[in-house]
Amino acid sequence: MVDGALRACRVDPDLHLLLVGPSEVADEIIHALPPYDRARVAVRGARRAVAMADAPASGGRADTTVRSAAAAVAEGHADAMTSAGPSGAVVTAAVLGFGRMPGIRRPALAATLPAAHGPVLLLDVGASIEASPTTLVQHGLLGVAYATAVLGVPAPRLGLLSIGTEPGKGDHPRRAADLALAERALPGAARYAGLVEGYEIATGELADVVVTDGFTGNVLLKGVEGVYGSTASDETPPRAAALLGVGGTVVVCHGAASGADLASGIALAADLHRRAATAAMCALIGDAHE
Amino acid sequence: MVDGALRACRVDPDLHLLLVGPSEVADEIIHALPPYDRARVAVRGARRAVAMADAPASGGRADTTVRSAAAAVAEGHADAMTSAGPSGAVVTAAVLGFGRMPGIRRPALAATLPAAHGPVLLLDVGASIEASPTTLVQHGLLGVAYATAVLGVPAPRLGLLSIGTEPGKGDHPRRAADLALAERALPGAARYAGLVEGYEIATGELADVVVTDGFTGNVLLKGVEGVYGSTASDETPPRAAALLGVGGTVVVCHGAASGADLASGIALAADLHRRAATAAMCALIGDAHE
Repeated sequence: MVDGALRACRVDPDLHLLLVGPSEVADEIIHALPPYDRARVAVRGARRAVAMADAPASGGRADTTVRSAAAAVAEGHADAMTSAGPSGAVVTAAVLGFGRMPGIRRPALAATLPAAHGPVLLLDVGASIEASPTTLVQHGLLGVAYATAVLGVPAPRLGLLSIGTEPGKGDHPRRAADLALAERALPGAARYAGLVEGYEIATGELADVVVTDGFTGNVLLKGVEGVYGSTASDETPPRAAALLGVGGTVVVCHGAASGADLASGIALAADLHRRAATAAMCALIGDAHE
Repeated sequence: MVDGALRACRVDPDLHLLLVGPSEVADEIIHALPPYDRARVAVRGARRAVAMADAPASGGRADTTVRSAAAAVAEGHADAMTSAGPSGAVVTAAVLGFGRMPGIRRPALAATLPAAHGPVLLLDVGASIEASPTTLVQHGLLGVAYATAVLGVPAPRLGLLSIGTEPGKGDHPRRAADLALAERALPGAARYAGLVEGYEIATGELADVVVTDGFTGNVLLKGVEGVYGSTASDETPPRAAALLGVGGTVVVCHGAASGADLASGIALAADLHRRAATAAMCALIGDAHE
């Protein structure tokens, strides 16, 4: 945490950090900064961290760091939040703090992966484990809105992850979502590219956005991270994901995030805020609903 | 097909091939072989191939190549079968041809992946899309029996793929299968290592066998194949998987298998037959049931 916060301050001279946690940790960060930089860091004391084994609802408890961070954003003391806590607890805290975007029932975590034909946005990578057709469709909308507003893809192609590309492949939620996506208007200039297979996240040949349920997406992201790690590739997927579908800017870092991972998560949150990504996505999704 | 069959014959001088398909394709293979090798190849005519878009039940039609191949094994004209047809159709044909192993309701496709701490067996990679606790447990038994009998792992560690390692992580089938596996006797000297995450298939740190449902396994295998392909790694997962849980030796190659992939699928089938893998797995699973 300390290393990540220091790196983020060093890289981005316009960044101000509000550290939410035990004050002795915050003090360590402040004292490691050059004196003229110390004014860029403030502290919001909170002692109770949500552990990986805790229920997601723990993120709703007022005394937790994650809920306190969401409250700081909701109250205007911060513009965005980054957490390396359990994603379920971050989702709970974010929904309680900022509410959901109109028309979105469940938020989704979206990770940007390197691919041969340009980056691929994979979602949901673990905000929920539900695989209903409604959620898959809503997450598809969130994904293409993010690709348009943040990744700068003018006409994102949306693929639905399944186990074959012929219509009718996959389980019931996939088949139903495939039919629903083929029929509906997508945000901006996005179009539905149909069913795609696992290869797609490494090639990006058919889709810029790949939507799946949070169980499959989480397993796939970690499997791919494992392979990138073992092949000593230059390309490594960032260990930070944007939480989409809530009314504020939230980035979730990996529970085992290094300082570099955390700094890139903080940088992503700052970038999303500066682009006003949440408002842009809301507008794109609102237009598609009309 | 032609290239794969020729490669397989070249590599394994003791191999005899029974080609099941249109006779003109078989003739092409026979004529490409040196005259003294031609006696190693025989033909069983069958014209109807099952297409990727066909329903899995098509594998039950008597006039299809895949059903004819299973019948050839069941009748004793061949010892094992390899197919690059749709896996659903191969499963149907294999179950009709050989029946299931005692105590196994659904067969599983198992792929051996390269990993840092030694190979990891991943199953099911697409024989079914069901994710019931019963199926996950049965596939776990099949996986450790295969690791013992075929991969030569003396005491395989079985991991259940989920989205966190703390007990209680994952959806209902995972939570129920986790409790069931923790309580039950496993074949041979295998032990249950608990929940594992996606990284495991690249590290093999906690488990030698990773069990998951066929949807997640298929997506994960293809995602990992995509990444290995894009990183130009020396390690590439074999594009052939063993069908476990049926009363005969069956290998399924990728629908887009190259000649080399097909040859390695044929070699895997020959190896499984020579090791009497099906009988050895049956015995290991039978002992664990007692």
